[in-house]
Amino acid sequence: MKVIFQIEGGSPVEIECNAGDNLLELARRANVAIDAPCSGNGSCGKCRVKLVEGEVESLPSRHITDEEYEAGWRLSCNCKVIGDCTVFVPDIASAYQSRMKTADLSSPKEVAIFENAQQQLKNSGIAFENKFRCVVVSMDEPTLDDTMPDNERLTWAISAQLGVEKVRIPYTVMVRLASILRKHHWCVAVKGKLEGDTFTCMELCPPTDTVMAGCAIDIGTTTVTMVLTDLESGKLLAKGSSGNGQIRYGADVINRIIQQGKDGGTKKLQDAIIKETLTPIMASLCRSAGISARSILQLCVAANTTMNHLFVGVDAEPVRMEPYIPSFFGWEDLTAGDLKLPANPLAPVIIAPNIGSYVGGDITAGTLAAGFWDQDEMSLFIDLGTNGEIVFGNRDFMMSCACSAGPAFEGGDISCGMRATDGAIEACTIDGTTMEPTLSIVGEEGQKPVGICGSGIIDIISELYRCGIINAKGLFVRDGQRVKRDAHGMGRYVLCEASCSETGREVSINEVDIDNFIRAKGAIFSAIDTLLSAVDMTVDCIDKVYVAGGIGSGINMANSVSIGMLPDVDLEKYTYIGNSSLTGAYAMVMSDQATAKCGELGANMTYLELSTHPGYMDNFVAACFIPHTDSKLFPHSKQEY
Amino acid sequence: MKVIFQIEGGSPVEIECNAGDNLLELARRANVAIDAPCSGNGSCGKCRVKLVEGEVESLPSRHITDEEYEAGWRLSCNCKVIGDCTVFVPDIASAYQSRMKTADLSSPKEVAIFENAQQQLKNSGIAFENKFRCVVVSMDEPTLDDTMPDNERLTWAISAQLGVEKVRIPYTVMVRLASILRKHHWCVAVKGKLEGDTFTCMELCPPTDTVMAGCAIDIGTTTVTMVLTDLESGKLLAKGSSGNGQIRYGADVINRIIQQGKDGGTKKLQDAIIKETLTPIMASLCRSAGISARSILQLCVAANTTMNHLFVGVDAEPVRMEPYIPSFFGWEDLTAGDLKLPANPLAPVIIAPNIGSYVGGDITAGTLAAGFWDQDEMSLFIDLGTNGEIVFGNRDFMMSCACSAGPAFEGGDISCGMRATDGAIEACTIDGTTMEPTLSIVGEEGQKPVGICGSGIIDIISELYRCGIINAKGLFVRDGQRVKRDAHGMGRYVLCEASCSETGREVSINEVDIDNFIRAKGAIFSAIDTLLSAVDMTVDCIDKVYVAGGIGSGINMANSVSIGMLPDVDLEKYTYIGNSSLTGAYAMVMSDQATAKCGELGANMTYLELSTHPGYMDNFVAACFIPHTDSKLFPHSKQEY
Repeated sequence: MKVIFQIEGGSPVEIECNAGDNLLELARRANVAIDAPCSGNGSCGKCRVKLVEGEVESLPSRHITDEEYEAGWRLSCNCKVIGDCTVFVPDIASAYQSRMKTADLSSPKEVAIFENAQQQLKNSGIAFENKFRCVVVSMDEPTLDDTMPDNERLTWAISAQLGVEKVRIPYTVMVRLASILRKHHWCVAVKGKLEGDTFTCMELCPPTDTVMAGCAIDIGTTTVTMVLTDLESGKLLAKGSSGNGQIRYGADVINRIIQQGKDGGTKKLQDAIIKETLTPIMASLCRSAGISARSILQLCVAANTTMNHLFVGVDAEPVRMEPYIPSFFGWEDLTAGDLKLPANPLAPVIIAPNIGSYVGGDITAGTLAAGFWDQDEMSLFIDLGTNGEIVFGNRDFMMSCACSAGPAFEGGDISCGMRATDGAIEACTIDGTTMEPTLSIVGEEGQKPVGICGSGIIDIISELYRCGIINAKGLFVRDGQRVKRDAHGMGRYVLCEASCSETGREVSINEVDIDNFIRAKGAIFSAIDTLLSAVDMTVDCIDKVYVAGGIGSGINMANSVSIGMLPDVDLEKYTYIGNSSLTGAYAMVMSDQATAKCGELGANMTYLELSTHPGYMDNFVAACFIPHTDSKLFPHSKQEY
Repeated sequence: MKVIFQIEGGSPVEIECNAGDNLLELARRANVAIDAPCSGNGSCGKCRVKLVEGEVESLPSRHITDEEYEAGWRLSCNCKVIGDCTVFVPDIASAYQSRMKTADLSSPKEVAIFENAQQQLKNSGIAFENKFRCVVVSMDEPTLDDTMPDNERLTWAISAQLGVEKVRIPYTVMVRLASILRKHHWCVAVKGKLEGDTFTCMELCPPTDTVMAGCAIDIGTTTVTMVLTDLESGKLLAKGSSGNGQIRYGADVINRIIQQGKDGGTKKLQDAIIKETLTPIMASLCRSAGISARSILQLCVAANTTMNHLFVGVDAEPVRMEPYIPSFFGWEDLTAGDLKLPANPLAPVIIAPNIGSYVGGDITAGTLAAGFWDQDEMSLFIDLGTNGEIVFGNRDFMMSCACSAGPAFEGGDISCGMRATDGAIEACTIDGTTMEPTLSIVGEEGQKPVGICGSGIIDIISELYRCGIINAKGLFVRDGQRVKRDAHGMGRYVLCEASCSETGREVSINEVDIDNFIRAKGAIFSAIDTLLSAVDMTVDCIDKVYVAGGIGSGINMANSVSIGMLPDVDLEKYTYIGNSSLTGAYAMVMSDQATAKCGELGANMTYLELSTHPGYMDNFVAACFIPHTDSKLFPHSKQEY
C-alpha cells in the first residue's frame, strides 16, 4: 500500500509501505518534515496531520479535540497505516525549515549586545585581531623571455607585498589560478591567512572584491542562530536563525544520539544540521550581505557536546553511555571543506571546546562572552536552553553543570508552545479580579496570537499563581470564564479564543503544560542549588547573575524568580545577555586571542556531573512546586488573591 | 534516430543521435571507449568497428580491405550516421582499458632496475628515508574517574611512544576515532607522518595491520605504469600498467589540450586519467598486494607538463599558446583527497617538477633515476615516448629539450602497431636471401602474433633496409612473396599471414607505417643533434647514453643506430634503463632526499624550446631518411644486399 503526503506549500511525496507502519516513521523515511519534539511518544502534540483520503488507525489524544478529530486531524506519531491514504502536512509542522528568519540588524538591542561583549573583551586585554588578510596584487604578463609559471608569479607578487617568506597555494585555489589570472589581466585580490612567515591563499577574486567574512554559529538543540561578520571591521553583515532540522529525530540530545546510532544515522543527523539547516541560512545571509560563500574565511561553532558530535559526524554514543566520555573536547584543524559547509573550503571551523558530556562549547563560548572570568565578583551564569547549563565562579575558579530542562523554554512540550517568532505571546499580565489577560505579542502591530514562547509561559504561570488561579502544584483552583476543563477534568486557561487567533485554534495553557514547565524550571533551580552546595556556598554569595538563551529578551526576571526558576536575589544583580553562545562565537571568529582564551576557559573549568551527584534528585523533586517546597528560599514569591 | 554500440565483453550502450552525426564523436558522447590515437583524422586506422545492423555512410580507407568492408568493418572516425544502426566495438578498441597488466614482480630484470637505481642514488648520498611511521599504541579504557576524551587519549599515547610534542588528528581520522578505538579495545595501529615535533595521524587500523604503502605513477601520454611499494622496506608490492584513458580525446598532448578547452573538458580529461585509468589500476594493485587503499600514504607522479596539468585539473591551454607558460612547474601540498584518488585522502601527492611546457616531471624524475647528475662523464639521456625528451650534461650542467615523436614508439600511428603486451612482435630478423622473417613475440610459448610494438618496428625497418627491401626513403624496392602491394600500389611487408595470426588479420608493415616511423625517429635524432649543437658539442663528446621509455626492454641498440634514430657511438656506451620516470617516482616516494634532489635538478636544468629554435626544422628534414641524408653520421649503417 502507499501513503501520499500533501505538504503545505510543497510538492506531494508518495511512499510505499506496509499495513501497520507508523505514520511519523513513514514521514521520516520519505524525508517529509514533521515537527516531533517529543520524538513520537504522544506527549507534545506537535506532529498533527490531517487525513484527506483513506483511513488510519489512531489512538485518542488529549491534543486533538473531538471537532478536530472529526475534521480529520490526527497525531502522526500514534497513527498506523491500514490502507492507501493521503494526509495533509501543515506548514506549521515544517516550521523549523521554512520559518527562517533574517533578523533586522538595525535593532539597537542586537547591535548593543555584540558591541558590549566586544568592548568588555577588549577591556580584559583581548585584542580583536585575526590572521586573515586581503591583498590586491598586480603581476607582469608572461612573455617568451619571462617564463615564470603562474604559481611562482603569484608567489613572488604576494611575497613582495606582504614581506612573507613562504606562500602556499592550496589545490582549491591552484585549479582556478590559470583562468582567473588571465581573466583579470594579472591583477587579483588574494584573500588568505597569515601565520608566522607563511601566507596561505584561500581565494582569488577580481581586484574589487576584497570583503573577508566570518560566520559565527550557535547550534542549539532546538534553534540555530548565525551571524555573518566582516573579518576586518567586526561589523555585522547579516543575522539569521531557524529551528534545528534534527528536531524530527527527537527533541532532546538523548533521542538524537539513539537515532544517530541506527544504520546510516550519523549521516542523516549530520545532513539534517548541515545540509538542511545551516546551508540554507548561510546562503540566505550571503545573499542578504551580497557576498559569495567563498568569502567566508573562518567559522566558529558554539554548541553543546552532542550537537558538536552530530555536526562533525562523529559517533556520539559514548556521550550517552557510562562513563560518558565524548570523543573530543576541542578539535583543531577542522575546515569548512571537511564538512561541506557552503563557505571557503579552506576556512577553519573553530569548535568552541566542550568540557564534559553535557557542558559543551555553547557554555565555554557563553562564559567567554559573559566576561566574569576576568572579575572578582562571584557570578552565576545560566543558559536556558533544551539543556540548561550553569556556571558559577570568578577569575579564580569556575564550576559548571548541566541539566536536562527539555524544550519547554523554547516552546516545546507545551501544547500551544512556539519559538519567539511572529505571533508568540512573549509577555502577559492577568487581572487578579477579572482574570482577564493582557498580552504582548511578537510581530507587527495587529499580529494575532499563534502560540506562547518561553518568556510568555513564565509570565503566564507566574500570573496564574499570583492570582491564585493555580496552586503550588500547578493545578487550577479558581473557576471563571477563562478557565475551562475538558471531558477528563483537565483544566486550562484560555489566552485567546479560537475565533481571535491567527490560526483559528484556541491558544491556551493546560495543566500538563504547566506540569512540563514546572519540571523544566525545577531542573534549572535544583541544578543551581546543587552547584552552589558543591562549592559550599549559598545564594547570598552571588554578586551577579547572567541569564542567557533564546528564551527571548522579553524574559521577566521578577516572574522567573516568583515561579522559583531563578534564585531569589536582588533583581538588580540580574542581566539578560541574550544568546551568549553566539556572542562568544562571534568574538572567536573575530579574534585569535578570544579563541585562545576560550580554550583556556574550557581547560580550567570544573565539570560537575549531576546525573551521578548525590542530592540532585532530591533537590529536583523539591523544586517541582511553585515556587518551591521550601518557600523560605523565595521570600518575594506570594499569592495575592 | 539511435545507435547501439555492442561492446565486446560489455553491455550494449544506446544513444540518440541525428542524421550526419560522426560515429566516433557519438561513441565519445556515449562514453564508449574506441581507440583513436590520431584523434579521428583517419590516419591511424585504429578506430575499427563492425556494422551489425543498419547502414552508415563512410569513406573508403586504406586501413580497411575490400573483404573487411564487405564483412561490415568501418573506421568509426569516417562514418556518418544515416539511420538507426547497431555497431560492434571490438575489445581491441578498448584495449587501453581492459588490457590492464599486473606485471610479474619476480622478473629479475624488473627488480634489478629498481635495485640498481636505488643503489646508485644511495651511492650519491641520497638516504632512503621518509617521514612515515606506524606505531601500535595501547590506551587505558576510560572510566568515570578517567574522563579524558578519545582524541586527547590517543594524543597522549602517541606522544609518549614517539616522544613528539604535537599530534594532529585530521578530520578523516577523527570521524572514525570513537568507533575504531572501542572496536579494537583501545589498541590500534596508527599510521602517519612525522614532521619536526609534529605527528599527523593519517589512518587508524587494527593493531595487526601495520603496512604503509607508497605508490609511484608514471603517466605517459599513451601508457600509464604504476608500482606499489612498501614505505619501510622499499620492497615492490605490485606493479601494473594500462593505456592512458585520455587517448580517446586524442593521441598527442595538443589534441588533448584542445579537448580540455571545450565546455566541461577539464573534468572529462581529469576523469579519464583519474577515474578511468588510475583508479582501476590502483584497486587492482591493492587487491594483488592485499592492502587497503587507505594504507597508501604517499604518491609520486612523474608525467609531462601537459599530463600533469590534465591530471590535477588545471587549464593547460597556456602550455599550448605562446608564450607557452604552464600554470605550474612544481606543486606543494597536493593530497590524494584533493584529486579523489583511491588512497589515503591525506596522502601527499608529489608532482615531479616540470621545467618547461614540453619537458616535464617525467624527465626530471628520469634524470634523477639515471644518476648522471652526480657524474663527470658527459651523458645523453633519451626518453622515447609520444613526446621524445632529451637531456645532455653531467654534474656541472644539464640541458634539455623535447620533440613530438608521435605515438609510433608505443605502436600508435602504425597500422598493426600495439603496445609491448601479449602478441606483440618485439624483435625480428630477416633472411637477406629468402626475405623470410624470424619473430620474437611477447607472451607465453606458442603465442601467435597480434601486432608490432616499438622495438619490433625498429628491428623490422632496420632489417628491411639492411636486406635492401626498402630504400632510404622507406619505399619497397625488392619484390618477393612477403612483399605485397595494394590497388594503389602501396607496398607492405607481411610478417604473418592472416591465417596464422591471433586475430585472423594479417600482421604487416606498409609504406605509410614506415614513413610515420621515420618521422618519429627523425624527430628524436634531430633533437639530439640540435641539443648538442646548442652546447657546441658533437657525438664524440658523449661518454654515456641512457635510453629510457616504454618502447620495451627488447630494444636493439645496433638497429636503433642503423636506422638513424640514435647517434652512431660505441654500442657499449648504451644502457637501456627501462621506464626511468617510474624509477624516479619510486625513489621520490621512498626518499624525502630524492624528492628534494629532483626539485633541485628541475630548478637547475636549462630548457631549450625547439619549436622556436633556428635550425631544428632543417635538422629534422635531414633526419627523415634511413639512416640520414648525411650518411657520414652513421658509418655503421649499411645495406648488405
